[in-house]
Amino acid sequence: MTSGPFPREVYVAGVGMTAFGRHEGKRSAELGQEAVRAALADAGLAYEAVEIAYCGHVLQGPTAGQKVLYGVGMTGIPIFNVENACASGTSALRAAAMAVGHGMADVALAVGFEAMGRGAIPTAGDERLASAGRQGVPALPALFANLFNEHARRYGTTVEQMAMVSVKNRAYGAKNPRAQFHEAVTLEDVLASREVAPPLRLMMCCPTTSGGAAAVVTSADIARGTRRPIRIVASVLQSDPMPSSADSLAGITEINRRTMQAAYDQAGIGPDQIDCAEIHDCFSIAEIIHYENLGLCAPGEGGRFIEQGLARARVQVSTSGGLLAKGHPLGATGVAQVVEAVEQLRGASGPRQVPNARLALTHCQGFGGAVGVHLFAA
Amino acid sequence: MTSGPFPREVYVAGVGMTAFGRHEGKRSAELGQEAVRAALADAGLAYEAVEIAYCGHVLQGPTAGQKVLYGVGMTGIPIFNVENACASGTSALRAAAMAVGHGMADVALAVGFEAMGRGAIPTAGDERLASAGRQGVPALPALFANLFNEHARRYGTTVEQMAMVSVKNRAYGAKNPRAQFHEAVTLEDVLASREVAPPLRLMMCCPTTSGGAAAVVTSADIARGTRRPIRIVASVLQSDPMPSSADSLAGITEINRRTMQAAYDQAGIGPDQIDCAEIHDCFSIAEIIHYENLGLCAPGEGGRFIEQGLARARVQVSTSGGLLAKGHPLGATGVAQVVEAVEQLRGASGPRQVPNARLALTHCQGFGGAVGVHLFAA
Repeated sequence: MTSGPFPREVYVAGVGMTAFGRHEGKRSAELGQEAVRAALADAGLAYEAVEIAYCGHVLQGPTAGQKVLYGVGMTGIPIFNVENACASGTSALRAAAMAVGHGMADVALAVGFEAMGRGAIPTAGDERLASAGRQGVPALPALFANLFNEHARRYGTTVEQMAMVSVKNRAYGAKNPRAQFHEAVTLEDVLASREVAPPLRLMMCCPTTSGGAAAVVTSADIARGTRRPIRIVASVLQSDPMPSSADSLAGITEINRRTMQAAYDQAGIGPDQIDCAEIHDCFSIAEIIHYENLGLCAPGEGGRFIEQGLARARVQVSTSGGLLAKGHPLGATGVAQVVEAVEQLRGASGPRQVPNARLALTHCQGFGGAVGVHLFAA
Repeated sequence: MTSGPFPREVYVAGVGMTAFGRHEGKRSAELGQEAVRAALADAGLAYEAVEIAYCGHVLQGPTAGQKVLYGVGMTGIPIFNVENACASGTSALRAAAMAVGHGMADVALAVGFEAMGRGAIPTAGDERLASAGRQGVPALPALFANLFNEHARRYGTTVEQMAMVSVKNRAYGAKNPRAQFHEAVTLEDVLASREVAPPLRLMMCCPTTSGGAAAVVTSADIARGTRRPIRIVASVLQSDPMPSSADSLAGITEINRRTMQAAYDQAGIGPDQIDCAEIHDCFSIAEIIHYENLGLCAPGEGGRFIEQGLARARVQVSTSGGLLAKGHPLGATGVAQVVEAVEQLRGASGPRQVPNARLALTHCQGFGGAVGVHLFAA
């Protein structure tokens, strides 16, 4: 029941985000506020119209959402801080969509933000993650190196294919003025970059990033009065029925396939109808695995999917530059994906515009067990 | 619209909690699991019946809720980790009630849990809090000492009146086998306890505590099949329209009064109809201020309200022992309040039972701007 289509239509009426990057010295509140103001301006709505707000972040403190929103307006609305690791932003969107879709509010705000330092994401306190790390190797890269090794063994996936994902996403990032990395790179560049968790190299890993993103979610009535609303046709968040979703191929496959299928079922479509997709490419191997999980290709075919150019030709994946090039400010990522989806469907993506984009997908996975998938229709 | 009464009736069909206390060496996952299992058993429902879960905690990590629930069952349901500082638990309840009240789910779970170390609550990263601390004085006690000083100056409230709150709540706690402190104390004991933030003394401050609490929230249809459901007749969460809600009497008064009034309006009742109330007595002065904010007495009369015995006679306040005696495991607190309210309304509170309790109130405040109020009817 909770994952079914909403009883009433739900739209994204406005989106906004900061540039993603280092933002040295900036607080997450400033980043969140910039994004919220941009999203409200895009929707043509005042903050006073917002009835409920969901704030996705990971490392910013228990009432970080209030610190963001009080800088935009003081209206006393309920503010929920929502956490689900790297899926915090998509969880905030899911909650906002539920609030509107079930008639709790006509205007809900989803905002994600994170101000991060340099270096690997802190994973202290999580034993599963800590045990994945090896001597001198950060835990998350080590975990995805293991996934690559398993995928390579079973399906013949190559390090070069991983590098091709990085090349593609850096090329898209070069066309996105808000991306952290603005320069295209070659296969040789990727393969020559520093080893982080062999065989994963630096350019196959998303950077640490600061930034904010926001989406104004509204009912059909409110959307009608806005400039260019985009409809949410599927909204699913699921957790993990496997003991360790991300440390084996079977685990990471099961939760992602199940969530994706639920989204396709909600929208009544199949993967071949997707024009562009923002998927959780925290590491290049993750994008390859998710081609399969999302049904863009058959199981085991992910490496060949990128090699044959299908992640640009059959469907355009991570046109924003993805986590690899746009950057990955944990809580902001899921909402920033919505910004890209909405702009693509509006035909407003400039040099990286997907021609005649009608249907866009966003997909986020949080370690510990949360996968969120949304589908948007022009 | 968001704070209005729900389109359909919402019940708490089961509650459960751990004993509150030090729980040295226990992880928050174990505490949460114990509470969830108890709540499900109380409702007579299997975990498989739960369609959506909201997990309130503060210091336990971004997917701590998953770590709790995976130990109970693996069903893939959406799990949201909800944070709002000391109002995290009440925010989880509010979200679960919304989910059921708006037809998103027939069975939703609210769980709160926290495993805390000794010493003052960590407040690093919050400038407002940090600036409240003085040389060698922890920030939150200092902040509430300031509130006492303002209240004393304006209304003549005394240190002895603060001590009376502690005496009352410790006496209730002595009748609650799940409370952290099991011994009644005298006025002299309280006044002789160590100074923490003058004139606040140790027994006027809630302890740091570990524990878990859970509530199974259901539709009327599901509730009918359960042992002893209790109806939620008001559910409100609001944020702060004042720049600094908790560091001046005007601030802490405004948000609490407004939230409380919204709850009374939802239920169509007034404060004189409340039989028992769990209020956010993080410090004794907070309970005094909230007598006023909740309309139990006139503004400025809080000190006299406790002195005249009205917090036992007119309405019974903090019968669980409150934060002062039962303890305050941040995320668990708001849900543990529901446990007390439900048990009182069921007539199941043993030696601390409020005779003929028909209407119970719970009230939680999170620093940074979140006040949650719920009303329950037998």
